[in-house]
Amino acid sequence: MTLRRSTIGVFDSGFGGLTVLKALLELIPGADYLYFGDTARLPYGSKSVETVARYAVEAAHYLEAHGAELLVIACNTATALALDRIKAAAHVPVVGVVEPGAEAAASVSKNKRVVVIGTEATVSSHAYRKALEARGLDAQEKACPLLVPLVEEGWVEHAVTEQVARIYLDEAFAHGFHDADALVLGCTHYPLLKPMLRRVAPAHVSIVDSAESTAHAVAAHLQTLLPASPAADEERRALPRLKFFATDSVEKFRRLGERFLGHTIEGVQHVDLKE
Amino acid sequence: MTLRRSTIGVFDSGFGGLTVLKALLELIPGADYLYFGDTARLPYGSKSVETVARYAVEAAHYLEAHGAELLVIACNTATALALDRIKAAAHVPVVGVVEPGAEAAASVSKNKRVVVIGTEATVSSHAYRKALEARGLDAQEKACPLLVPLVEEGWVEHAVTEQVARIYLDEAFAHGFHDADALVLGCTHYPLLKPMLRRVAPAHVSIVDSAESTAHAVAAHLQTLLPASPAADEERRALPRLKFFATDSVEKFRRLGERFLGHTIEGVQHVDLKE
Repeated sequence: MTLRRSTIGVFDSGFGGLTVLKALLELIPGADYLYFGDTARLPYGSKSVETVARYAVEAAHYLEAHGAELLVIACNTATALALDRIKAAAHVPVVGVVEPGAEAAASVSKNKRVVVIGTEATVSSHAYRKALEARGLDAQEKACPLLVPLVEEGWVEHAVTEQVARIYLDEAFAHGFHDADALVLGCTHYPLLKPMLRRVAPAHVSIVDSAESTAHAVAAHLQTLLPASPAADEERRALPRLKFFATDSVEKFRRLGERFLGHTIEGVQHVDLKE
Repeated sequence: MTLRRSTIGVFDSGFGGLTVLKALLELIPGADYLYFGDTARLPYGSKSVETVARYAVEAAHYLEAHGAELLVIACNTATALALDRIKAAAHVPVVGVVEPGAEAAASVSKNKRVVVIGTEATVSSHAYRKALEARGLDAQEKACPLLVPLVEEGWVEHAVTEQVARIYLDEAFAHGFHDADALVLGCTHYPLLKPMLRRVAPAHVSIVDSAESTAHAVAAHLQTLLPASPAADEERRALPRLKFFATDSVEKFRRLGERFLGHTIEGVQHVDLKE
């Protein structure tokens, strides 16, 4: 790893991880980024552990081979199901989204009772519950499989999406969790729904966006690796270089991805993973 | 191919093709069936032509290698995007779902104006429009990407699903297609929504279920291959043998698949396509 400017590899099954990349760019503009979206095989959220782990390890190797010095698994499902496998297979440090999300929830929740929403696979893994229980919090996890397709349909501020969110959150905050005071967005698509979820969630609830928490965890990690120095500071003032890799259509990646990243996407390269 | 009892390979990206298998079992109980659900890589509906074609050809080869004497591509997206590629790669006859659906629409539509609903990829391919125009019909195609996840969430008779269907059908029957008199269900998930779509669609509209149309096309195909004889009739009276192959979790295939097939599923085998 260079002592000055680092290359961070960001991996997701598709577009959702771009919300993590967005948070990283805001917090750590002095780095370069490689983003890998496994769009040919998305979504991971409904797939099994074995399948998700195999896909994620392939993507991690691809990013390492292209120069990533630190890997961010910007996908809750891949983190929840396969972080240990990815860490074991990688030769560089790996940061997932679950631990930072749990840490942030632990710091905002006063009564130590938290609701986590995510994909079916993330919820079934109980990765968040384990991470939260390890910090002394009780967690209720709720799978919300319709929210990802609703975001991808572009129905971010739509009556149907609000109705669906209301149904899911009513169930999530039931069964003894009426008093939960934090809602963890355990899927990288959900930050796009944050304004709407803010309206639908009980007023006393803090919303924890694991994209932001993860960016902070990465920043902390980099500080230990890259000590400050005038030369390094100078080099880090350059604009971040971004490269995108997608396993499905490049054109579609650009079009859909811009919604998640919040600005135009250029330089997307198609990747054909052997299969 | 045996002259008596044939083995039919049915392929889909996941569970939807089970609605076609259901129609086949009702119409042609005197055959054996191999069903391949590429659940590790579903859904195909949002993927590109190249990706879908590669996946579908792999699945077709797998079914042939396991004894299929006729292949049914029980997936609108794979048919729409890759039928020619599959036919070129296969060594047995191949039947897709688009032509039978278009044929059925042509026979029920009086004013030759038809609405087709399907996934994003099926609609973008314009496979239905081409097949319908070749029969002298005008078609309006409408992508309904939320209907598959709604069916998979089990919200088949649900206010949200009805609202979503109403939004999609209002758009589909607009722009000069108010007078269309047939609605083609161009996705094998949609037959589960048929009672609800019946309520939402304009009353004068006939609903064309391509699962049923495809079963009829397969039956016609078999009759030319397997002439009737007392010995053959005897052999065909045995119950159909069913084998299922899934690329993702076997347990999940069984659980979700039963909703589509309408009865219990046993003997699911996990397939690990090299990738």
